[in-house]
Amino acid sequence: MSEKSPIAFYFDFSSPYGWLASHGIDGLAAKYGRRVDWRPIMLGAALKVAGVQPNVTTPLKGDYLRRDVARCARLMGLDYREPANMPMNALAASRAYYWLRQDDGFKAKALARAVWAAYFGQGRDPSEVAVVAEIGASLGIDPDALTAACQDPAVKEVLRVETDDAVARGVFGSPFFFVDGEPFWGHDRVDQLERWMGGGAW
Amino acid sequence: MSEKSPIAFYFDFSSPYGWLASHGIDGLAAKYGRRVDWRPIMLGAALKVAGVQPNVTTPLKGDYLRRDVARCARLMGLDYREPANMPMNALAASRAYYWLRQDDGFKAKALARAVWAAYFGQGRDPSEVAVVAEIGASLGIDPDALTAACQDPAVKEVLRVETDDAVARGVFGSPFFFVDGEPFWGHDRVDQLERWMGGGAW
Repeated sequence: MSEKSPIAFYFDFSSPYGWLASHGIDGLAAKYGRRVDWRPIMLGAALKVAGVQPNVTTPLKGDYLRRDVARCARLMGLDYREPANMPMNALAASRAYYWLRQDDGFKAKALARAVWAAYFGQGRDPSEVAVVAEIGASLGIDPDALTAACQDPAVKEVLRVETDDAVARGVFGSPFFFVDGEPFWGHDRVDQLERWMGGGAW
Repeated sequence: MSEKSPIAFYFDFSSPYGWLASHGIDGLAAKYGRRVDWRPIMLGAALKVAGVQPNVTTPLKGDYLRRDVARCARLMGLDYREPANMPMNALAASRAYYWLRQDDGFKAKALARAVWAAYFGQGRDPSEVAVVAEIGASLGIDPDALTAACQDPAVKEVLRVETDDAVARGVFGSPFFFVDGEPFWGHDRVDQLERWMGGGAW
């Protein structure tokens, strides 16, 4: 039996729907013999291509989405506290993620989960490199090395390439998934994504 | 037992997600002792307030949404043929709907369903009053009376007021539902809407 290709999971750390979707996605994929490749991007670049504003700062839509995220989080049993700054600048968290992923995918995902918990659950602001370094330190990651990595040209380049690749593939929102090339946008498409994994195209 | 308030179902006739959501919504509501108040609006007015373009003409997003609609329709077992003109101008269909609703809510919904079937299933263009009149005629509605109603200032005013009311309530997309004041946006929130009807707030 040939190995199945991993699910590509694109998100911006500042996206609450990306955070919602991150819960359970690895376990779901494992049921179908797949891994999940978490790929943070700078969604602002994609939105620029689409010519749209971030949802949260869009009139009417922004107010609804704040309510919807809180409601979805309650339904999923997740601790959620609306961040004071939405969207936040995800540069440091994204760079730290790719730096860690070079050596250890699990450690990178652990950092990602901890960044989200800090941002959406604890009122902290990972826009600051120092905050990301503190979060990393709580997981046993050297804060000085993490801080240095966020300024490493090679690490910066990885994030730039991932973001460009995402836009080239048609990503315009977060979360955005691909299963064998089939795109699914939104945490509310995870059920369709599961059907796709289970039964192929319909 | 006091009667429960109806579900408000806002949509634009040119919205494929409104069309998807229309299937089964009345039956679902009836299970919870509610009626559904279908309220077509001119979504362009709401989008203007939110400062956003129609999804279908937005780069990246438009391409994805065409694929997503077709995929959702297949999953729901619906006949779908992508219209040549998206979005279409829903003025005539919306006015004809409110004209019919004055006397007969069932007849108005029958017209709405037939307009959608023509637009999303048969490659016809209800932007034209004549096409809406033909569709109405197939249901036994006098085409001359329908055509005249589309130019009746009182009928035009109903649509204007409904659209303004929708924007005032925060509607910025289609479909958009309210259950006892609680807003739900998107055909992919119908499952949450059902939970809300069944178990109240969570």
